[in-house]
Amino acid sequence: MTRQRTGGRQGRAAKRKNQAASHFDAAWRQIKNPYPPIEQFSVDEIEAIHQASLTVLCEIGIKVLSPEAREIYVSAGMTEAEDQVIRFGPDLLLDLIAQAPSEFTLRSRNRTRDLRIGGNNVALGTAGGTPNFSSLQNPRHPGTQADFDNIMRVAQSFDVIHMAGVPVEPQDIPPNLRHYHTVRSAITLTDKISGVFFRGRHVVADSYEMLRIAHGLSPEEFVNTPLSLSVANSNSPLQLDHLMCAGIIDAARAGQMMILTPFTLAGAMAPVTIPGALVMQNAEALAGLALSQIVRPGVPVCYGSFTSNVDMKTGAPAFGTPEYVRAAFASGQLARRYGLPLRSSGPTASNAPDAQAAYESQMSLWGALMGGANIVMHAAGWLEGGLVFSAEKMILDIEVLQMFAEIFKPLAINDATLGLEAIRDVGHGGHFFGTAHTLERFETAFYSPLVSDWNNYENWAERGSVDATTRASRIFQETLAAYEPPPLDPSRLEEIDDFIARRTAEGGADITR
Amino acid sequence: MTRQRTGGRQGRAAKRKNQAASHFDAAWRQIKNPYPPIEQFSVDEIEAIHQASLTVLCEIGIKVLSPEAREIYVSAGMTEAEDQVIRFGPDLLLDLIAQAPSEFTLRSRNRTRDLRIGGNNVALGTAGGTPNFSSLQNPRHPGTQADFDNIMRVAQSFDVIHMAGVPVEPQDIPPNLRHYHTVRSAITLTDKISGVFFRGRHVVADSYEMLRIAHGLSPEEFVNTPLSLSVANSNSPLQLDHLMCAGIIDAARAGQMMILTPFTLAGAMAPVTIPGALVMQNAEALAGLALSQIVRPGVPVCYGSFTSNVDMKTGAPAFGTPEYVRAAFASGQLARRYGLPLRSSGPTASNAPDAQAAYESQMSLWGALMGGANIVMHAAGWLEGGLVFSAEKMILDIEVLQMFAEIFKPLAINDATLGLEAIRDVGHGGHFFGTAHTLERFETAFYSPLVSDWNNYENWAERGSVDATTRASRIFQETLAAYEPPPLDPSRLEEIDDFIARRTAEGGADITR
Repeated sequence: MTRQRTGGRQGRAAKRKNQAASHFDAAWRQIKNPYPPIEQFSVDEIEAIHQASLTVLCEIGIKVLSPEAREIYVSAGMTEAEDQVIRFGPDLLLDLIAQAPSEFTLRSRNRTRDLRIGGNNVALGTAGGTPNFSSLQNPRHPGTQADFDNIMRVAQSFDVIHMAGVPVEPQDIPPNLRHYHTVRSAITLTDKISGVFFRGRHVVADSYEMLRIAHGLSPEEFVNTPLSLSVANSNSPLQLDHLMCAGIIDAARAGQMMILTPFTLAGAMAPVTIPGALVMQNAEALAGLALSQIVRPGVPVCYGSFTSNVDMKTGAPAFGTPEYVRAAFASGQLARRYGLPLRSSGPTASNAPDAQAAYESQMSLWGALMGGANIVMHAAGWLEGGLVFSAEKMILDIEVLQMFAEIFKPLAINDATLGLEAIRDVGHGGHFFGTAHTLERFETAFYSPLVSDWNNYENWAERGSVDATTRASRIFQETLAAYEPPPLDPSRLEEIDDFIARRTAEGGADITR
Repeated sequence: MTRQRTGGRQGRAAKRKNQAASHFDAAWRQIKNPYPPIEQFSVDEIEAIHQASLTVLCEIGIKVLSPEAREIYVSAGMTEAEDQVIRFGPDLLLDLIAQAPSEFTLRSRNRTRDLRIGGNNVALGTAGGTPNFSSLQNPRHPGTQADFDNIMRVAQSFDVIHMAGVPVEPQDIPPNLRHYHTVRSAITLTDKISGVFFRGRHVVADSYEMLRIAHGLSPEEFVNTPLSLSVANSNSPLQLDHLMCAGIIDAARAGQMMILTPFTLAGAMAPVTIPGALVMQNAEALAGLALSQIVRPGVPVCYGSFTSNVDMKTGAPAFGTPEYVRAAFASGQLARRYGLPLRSSGPTASNAPDAQAAYESQMSLWGALMGGANIVMHAAGWLEGGLVFSAEKMILDIEVLQMFAEIFKPLAINDATLGLEAIRDVGHGGHFFGTAHTLERFETAFYSPLVSDWNNYENWAERGSVDATTRASRIFQETLAAYEPPPLDPSRLEEIDDFIARRTAEGGADITR
């Protein structure tokens, strides 16, 4: 039934053309993680990180480049020290953080795809913000609007992707007009959660207005309906710039969700020790989240974790490392310490959609998911530490995400699943292929893979010895060929297009403020 | 210090030549898993699986093809039913299982590499028993003794590999002489735990004798010194054949470790439901382990888990699937239910050492390790569901195993690691590259990768855009080039060679019994 309402024709068509066709569990659903999170540290150790980050905030403070943000902090009782530095009283800070909800709902344009954030709910999103795009057909190049559109189409086609995000920078569109095209693309090509970049007040306001129209909400309804995804990155160490402050303030005023993710790469912008990097991550996250809660107490936010390490030989960022995994486990403990939903990621530093990309991203994902992440960004398509969005990597990642969705499904123990009668019927040395117990279940018993080829070597070789990356490429192209857009009220689209035309005529967004 | 005693010249030489050189944690050590295992089922649900498997053993029984094994079972109070079937009284069975130790030590020829099995200890082994070998230089072909020797050399060179095992079938050696060559290879080219195949009583006896000589033990000492690794696979469903029974009996008499691993592929040799497959796995494991404990109460054994599923479209076995992961989590609960160490695996069905191989094997590994496995077999080199040992896959796997070893290391929280002083010194908007806190730690702060290339795209492309599989191939070859064998007392080698010469002159092993 959900299938009928959410998948529509485009869903069925895409499924016919690619191997997801046979997968019984392709229908959209919110994923719930049934396992208790893995804990990296003891309660006392987490408390030591917490206390150290309070000390950082109280004694060293955060340099806040926005005068408006500094004023807001001071209005709530923080102190402004020399040189744009805000210092935080621990009690005041923790009172603000306590205002943020532990769970909330993000509204999707397709209401059956509303997302619950927090608790043991998991929402998965595409890679975001990459300047380049690559595919086997069209090697690495600056991202275009056509690339962006294609990512939206594929994101829409796979139900395991919950959030379409802002995957690639369409560099063929001028920066002051870019958000009109990307938000319109997300609205028309998907019915999933859209992303809004903190690229200045006009960009944020324009984006929210387009989403408001797309959802058919009044301005009053909009500010009480979280429906978008934005990330503010602190400028580690211990700094918040103009754009991020403006974004945090504007998202809060608009009642929209904001994730505060410090960019704490151990050894570069953060201490070389993982506990030290976590102290800094925690201090920056709490400071940014507090700004949001001063502006609008109770507005939905997420604690963002992106702590990884650099290659100490070159300074290059590394992802999916052992350090990343342990930081992800610990970040879940910290987010839960404050009753906040956790955002984590699935990144890799690999330059190709190869075995390294697969093992590093999966390390990241296990760290994120077993750390208790509620939102996993950069979960499909990310390569090169975020410098490129890869078509093949997107499909390889979707396979792994579908596997996690299957692992997380309830597994019932009852007489039927214990199968004593089937075991009795087959007896010794037989097989279960043709038993009633098997025949009743075989179509839906197991996860049916998207990319994985389980043929024996001879069959695989006969078909050309096609490797996983090449198969992924084919699936990406087939998915595009079979894609059909989700329905959108024509009057809303007209209103959006009128808005874009008007704003474009006005010169687009002023992206300097 | 450990480095001096265990790595020796060959260790340092290998490290010089490949990228492991810079990895501070390359020294051999036993891995301990610091995380509580992930549990798939509630205590009640595990109890339901336990009870169902007792019902299977009591009412359906196990078909035991060996008259000697049936006699042994009957001598301990089990009943022989019609048609070679042994039925098990639950109390008698559980009393036998309770005799098996929860923890024990396997002696390595290099005593600093003795392995503790059980508790939270983890031991990692090469892929085992593959008929074929492949490398980029020498594509897929029936395994040879030269391939076997090369795997031993690489296994010896990487400290994260604890057990050399019996990786590939040297098909250029006649079956009746094969074990002389493989065991001699393992003894002379490695100082790690060796594997003994259950290929008939002569093969087992010969192999044990060679290991006894290599370790310089008297026959009396040998039977009290577990130092080898053998696997008995039950012939699912619910059957134990002659060779496996003989192996279980002979290993127990020789005081050597045996792992009972049912080959329970859901939908083929086991019920199509994972709980049903676990019932069968559990019944078969308990039955086989009981035989061992009747022969010699307290002899070290492991509970083996290999439950996976088949592709219901083709019947082909699949590995690293969501079903595999959940069965691995549950198997840990079952093994702990009986106080037994757990053996699990790191397999994949991929035909190439590509992204599929990487993501499936890592799924298997997370399932195994977070399920609480004490021994992970097939952890390096496995492809094609075990039909080929891949040189490149071995190196890719070693990278991931080293990452797990790093994740599992203790991560201390103290003033130095919390880094408050460093954070204070750097302040706002700077970086940590040159701080004293960083300089004191940067050489050993992070895992240094073996295969992963963290160069930026431009540098990577300039160097030829070499993918991870090709880099792994180079590392395999470089490791071979730098390899030097561990020391072995020449008189022991002479005694082994005399033994082989005598046994070969006698016609080798009778592999029909």
